[in-house]
Amino acid sequence: MRAEIITVGTEILLGEITNTDARFLGKQCARLGIEVYHQVTVGDNQKRLSQSLRQARDRSDLILVTGGLGPTPDDITRQVVSEVWDRELIRADENTSSGHQCMIPRGSVPLKNRVGTAWGFFLGNECADVACLPGPPSELRPMFKDSLMPLLDREGVLPDTGLFSRSVLVSGMGESTVAKKLARVLDEQQDPTVAIYAERGRVRVRLTTRAAGEKQAAEKLTPVAEAIRSILGKHVYGFDDQTLAGALGEILRERNMSLALAESCTGGLLGKMLTDTPGSSDYFRGGIIAYSNQSKRLHLDVPEQLLVEHGAVSREVAESMVQGARASFSSEVAASITGIAGPGGAAPGKPVGTVCFGFAGPWGCCSRQRRFRGDREYVRRRSAMFSLSRLRELLLSH
Amino acid sequence: MRAEIITVGTEILLGEITNTDARFLGKQCARLGIEVYHQVTVGDNQKRLSQSLRQARDRSDLILVTGGLGPTPDDITRQVVSEVWDRELIRADENTSSGHQCMIPRGSVPLKNRVGTAWGFFLGNECADVACLPGPPSELRPMFKDSLMPLLDREGVLPDTGLFSRSVLVSGMGESTVAKKLARVLDEQQDPTVAIYAERGRVRVRLTTRAAGEKQAAEKLTPVAEAIRSILGKHVYGFDDQTLAGALGEILRERNMSLALAESCTGGLLGKMLTDTPGSSDYFRGGIIAYSNQSKRLHLDVPEQLLVEHGAVSREVAESMVQGARASFSSEVAASITGIAGPGGAAPGKPVGTVCFGFAGPWGCCSRQRRFRGDREYVRRRSAMFSLSRLRELLLSH
Repeated sequence: MRAEIITVGTEILLGEITNTDARFLGKQCARLGIEVYHQVTVGDNQKRLSQSLRQARDRSDLILVTGGLGPTPDDITRQVVSEVWDRELIRADENTSSGHQCMIPRGSVPLKNRVGTAWGFFLGNECADVACLPGPPSELRPMFKDSLMPLLDREGVLPDTGLFSRSVLVSGMGESTVAKKLARVLDEQQDPTVAIYAERGRVRVRLTTRAAGEKQAAEKLTPVAEAIRSILGKHVYGFDDQTLAGALGEILRERNMSLALAESCTGGLLGKMLTDTPGSSDYFRGGIIAYSNQSKRLHLDVPEQLLVEHGAVSREVAESMVQGARASFSSEVAASITGIAGPGGAAPGKPVGTVCFGFAGPWGCCSRQRRFRGDREYVRRRSAMFSLSRLRELLLSH
Repeated sequence: MRAEIITVGTEILLGEITNTDARFLGKQCARLGIEVYHQVTVGDNQKRLSQSLRQARDRSDLILVTGGLGPTPDDITRQVVSEVWDRELIRADENTSSGHQCMIPRGSVPLKNRVGTAWGFFLGNECADVACLPGPPSELRPMFKDSLMPLLDREGVLPDTGLFSRSVLVSGMGESTVAKKLARVLDEQQDPTVAIYAERGRVRVRLTTRAAGEKQAAEKLTPVAEAIRSILGKHVYGFDDQTLAGALGEILRERNMSLALAESCTGGLLGKMLTDTPGSSDYFRGGIIAYSNQSKRLHLDVPEQLLVEHGAVSREVAESMVQGARASFSSEVAASITGIAGPGGAAPGKPVGTVCFGFAGPWGCCSRQRRFRGDREYVRRRSAMFSLSRLRELLLSH
């Protein structure tokens, strides 16, 4: 079963929008065991779309077309499909208002749009089946999952096996260390396959296998995921889509502990990441965004003398901040961040990217200093991830 | 000048990564006046890459290939290009270490990689020129801009005109209102063309024109951008890549005013957005992330009675919070947000998405209530954008 994805839209060729539809469809096809050999993008151009459809018909079993189903004269997908497969356009549903967007080629199955007004359709053919879906992701995704997928299943088009993957998520350990520790697994493991990806502030170990369904896949994936977890130990904070902030939150919830923050250079980012998780109010009390020295003194009781002697970006001030946050919120655990995110603000001995961290909890109070090399956004994101990772480790060892 | 972009990588077909290279190259080509008619993605497969290259050679003048230049056996781009154009592979530079990654087809111009180890190359031909660039965006982008673009310019390959665009950024006004107010412009304006895009919490009006250079483009774009600004008035907060938080910051800086925050449901997001702008410490004093009622009482002096009577999500509490923040940070201006981001937390009369806002400044103290329909992330992002937009308007009218 060979599929081909054709995206229609001049705005994609011009680089005005990212082609997330192709990624979505690629992922879904992989999941369903449909092999995608080609992705093609053409503009809103009759001749080139027609050529691409004819080529796809000759080399693929299933053609997934997205875009060009809207109401404007630029939207030519229905018309071109109807010409290439020589089927006149008829109304998808007698009850809907007339107009371009509800026309589908005779003999095709209409795919209803729950979100927008454009109908999609599936046209089964001897040589290649073709499905046309709307371009906006918010319309494409439900139509694919709720209408097209069940239809392909009923038509018996889907293969018996699909690709399934699981990610083991690692913090507090670099990519090369992970690769070293997993050298034997990487070497010996054939099915599932194992691959390592470095992401900002964490490492993802992805296992992939082919199986007939979720259950069969889990039987192959789970033992290897567990083996990797036992090799990497507490550095594995979760699986698949879990966030580090969410994993930390689970530990706090289990232990019935509360958390408070004191953020300087991250300016609220750490609080934002913690509260991305629904229900985080169970353990997250709040924080002080102490972006000025005034606020560090006033809200966190950092002594003026400490700021003068060591500077706002110092382990001493980070420790004072974290103690201030814990006291102010009466929380069991607290974290603080103070650093130079750049591009300005560097001082002698404290280059851009220098960040100090404070951690208070059952272990007492401690601090760390790191230097991250990158732009402002990178330094801030890495700082927040480092704080979460270190806090999680401290909690696990106390 | 017709170009074609070929991206090589099975991970793109599987939907594991988004094809941002194609977007980047599409945008750059548009800028340079090179028309891209096709984007094609194939996996790490010799036969299909070879077929795609031969097809591109027949229909395009310039072929931009990305990916498949790495050190593993999967990386086949050099080999396939050398076969299709029948040129043996030689070392790019006698001084570099040997190995796969420094091999280029005889007669091609090597493109040095400042970031990674894989060399790129440009092969000029009678029928179609081909440039091969590395897949990782951090390597591709500098190589394109610093090496390939000047080379194309020297070779006289670039057309005389390119596409240039400018965005007028609008807040506090919906897409349909913008479209209505700009109806005449949209109707009459031919060059530059005008298009309206709704983005989360703001509207982008994009002007596009073809010109020989920045200066010539500005002569066409600036008058239309100014005309649009005068129609939409103070709702226009900036141009191109400016953020709403940055625009607000500029007003505060001009007026020598300081800002403090009190955030509940956004949990630090508003502070994060304000501090995305370098130098924001000039006007941003800090904030209280009052995620618990305890913190609202303790750090913002919200009376217990107000919380009991009206609930934490109420205009009364929002006003009390904002006054507390202003007092606590001794700032001229303050903003507060308290709401139900969901999925849980709904109460009778207060569905998920209900958010209350407080604003304190020269105008005294006022509040607003809104209901945003969407998931947790959407509600939080829209809330932060609404707060910034409203604060900006209040400052401009006082």
